[in-house]
Amino acid sequence: MDKLLEEYTELIDHKLREYFKTVLEEEKAYHPFIGDVFAQVEEFLLRKGKRIASCSTLLTYKGYTGEIEDVLDICVGIELYRHGILIHDDLVDRDEKRRGGGVFHKLFTYEDRFGESIAVFCGNILFSQALKTLFESNFDVVGKVIQLFLEDYKAVNESQTLDLLFEHKEPTVEEWYVMASKRAASLFKASMLTGAILGGAPAQDLQILEEAAMHIGYSFDIQDDIIGTFASEEQYGRATGGDILLGKKPLHVVYAYKLANRDLQQELRDIIKAKKVGADGIDRIQKIIKECGALAKTKEASRDHANRAIKLINKTSMNAESKNFFKDLIDFVTENLDWYQ
Amino acid sequence: MDKLLEEYTELIDHKLREYFKTVLEEEKAYHPFIGDVFAQVEEFLLRKGKRIASCSTLLTYKGYTGEIEDVLDICVGIELYRHGILIHDDLVDRDEKRRGGGVFHKLFTYEDRFGESIAVFCGNILFSQALKTLFESNFDVVGKVIQLFLEDYKAVNESQTLDLLFEHKEPTVEEWYVMASKRAASLFKASMLTGAILGGAPAQDLQILEEAAMHIGYSFDIQDDIIGTFASEEQYGRATGGDILLGKKPLHVVYAYKLANRDLQQELRDIIKAKKVGADGIDRIQKIIKECGALAKTKEASRDHANRAIKLINKTSMNAESKNFFKDLIDFVTENLDWYQ
Repeated sequence: MDKLLEEYTELIDHKLREYFKTVLEEEKAYHPFIGDVFAQVEEFLLRKGKRIASCSTLLTYKGYTGEIEDVLDICVGIELYRHGILIHDDLVDRDEKRRGGGVFHKLFTYEDRFGESIAVFCGNILFSQALKTLFESNFDVVGKVIQLFLEDYKAVNESQTLDLLFEHKEPTVEEWYVMASKRAASLFKASMLTGAILGGAPAQDLQILEEAAMHIGYSFDIQDDIIGTFASEEQYGRATGGDILLGKKPLHVVYAYKLANRDLQQELRDIIKAKKVGADGIDRIQKIIKECGALAKTKEASRDHANRAIKLINKTSMNAESKNFFKDLIDFVTENLDWYQ
Repeated sequence: MDKLLEEYTELIDHKLREYFKTVLEEEKAYHPFIGDVFAQVEEFLLRKGKRIASCSTLLTYKGYTGEIEDVLDICVGIELYRHGILIHDDLVDRDEKRRGGGVFHKLFTYEDRFGESIAVFCGNILFSQALKTLFESNFDVVGKVIQLFLEDYKAVNESQTLDLLFEHKEPTVEEWYVMASKRAASLFKASMLTGAILGGAPAQDLQILEEAAMHIGYSFDIQDDIIGTFASEEQYGRATGGDILLGKKPLHVVYAYKLANRDLQQELRDIIKAKKVGADGIDRIQKIIKECGALAKTKEASRDHANRAIKLINKTSMNAESKNFFKDLIDFVTENLDWYQ
């Protein structure tokens, strides 16, 4: 999968560079500072990384057509879309780093409010430009795709609102899924259905892919959260357990509050409240999550979603290359789960 | 105009209430807290106020068709759109009040970050739902309208970025217009062209209306800024000169830096830097702006835009009622200018 991802990522990046070449000229002509802001947007978007969302669109499209040329502009739209969301997400979560660089809202001068406000505006601009890119594509059925992304944007913003609420309450497992159903699950759904709709997939495949995408999303979210809690800063690039100490409730914490005994639950609450790092902080949280069985339960859930996704992908009429891509992508997730015992 | 505005505002508000009735049910079913958030969105949108943007759409549409029924759903979309922008705008400008109530980001509990983040997300949701509302309308040509709003959303966010930059630099008059061309001017353009396109206006009218809308927008912006600097808190509902003390550069301040002598320019800078209120603060700013001729120059500019707009409106083939509405709207602006001597 890595080779395929790299190959297609390079093609999409090339299209993104072309896109920004035109846009930067227009924006500089409007006002030099707006030109500078768009140059920052380009730098942010073109940082090295796997373009999983747009590659999912590309591979789904290829799975039904054998072609990729026509869908590349759509992939540009998806990357604009994805990064607009990331800019707002990093702002709200007070993050510091994104893919080896500063978060977008920290790239500007003057006081904090300046960069934070520009981040709000640029997130907005990226969403509108993502839709414009989709709108201007030559596909007859692109209206359906736009509706998918309008729906997904609402979904993602609702999910982020719940994620924020959960900093102040302890959700049940069911409630966690209510939140997660509109997070990565929703993005995979929009990305994969876009490729399928534009590629002319049969109606029954759309249903199967929607379900598969949800499971891939859940598996990803669960794994990403486990990495966030258990990987070192060197491995992951972000402070270990940063999300938990901000009060976030990944599924393994939700399970810890369900499975740990009362004393351990209270200890967990106290550490999170005091935002303790190190041996009596995040290390202790890791131990509690492991020992009460929450980590095992969560890894099992992630594997279960992965297995269901693979079975569903196999049921579609996509070609072998695309099926293998998604199976490799899913395997990559479940393999990563084994890093954290 | 007031009677017409009131009558049509009531019709649009009725449609908005219908819209929220359906939406609130769906959102409550998703998660009770998201239901609560949408209830706050409804309260915020339905606060008493003139719906100038959506009434401009409605009256332009009526000007070409004699009807309004079909365009009411579009007006709902425009109000969702407008308020999404206001929510982000109030957040970025650290405002406290909006139409007699708290700004949206202050309506929530927990710490500041909670409400501020929800404001980012809800602004996003409103934009996506505005587009969805347009998308689902029955007009064949609604694609053109959606493109207008995608373009306007980018424009407004760029204008707000420049507005923010101007807190840290002193723009020229030309630069002020570069910023203002994508502010109220752009919103009037999108609102009026929407009514015209959907109402089947001839191509030459679209051009005329676009130009007229720009002038209405400039006239409005200039007047609104004058009110912001010269009206009392009782009249205006917001602290006198609040924007100036935040470092904003309305056109009358831009002209003051051009027309006042060096000493007065420096005094202006010092007062703004020290954020002084009262007799040696905003009162003194008002005096400097008046005495150097900046207020007169700015009022003249606003009147000039108003006159141009009226001439252009007269050239269109809209019916008399709609022409009169816009003329009354423009007169209302220029009459208000006389309040501040």
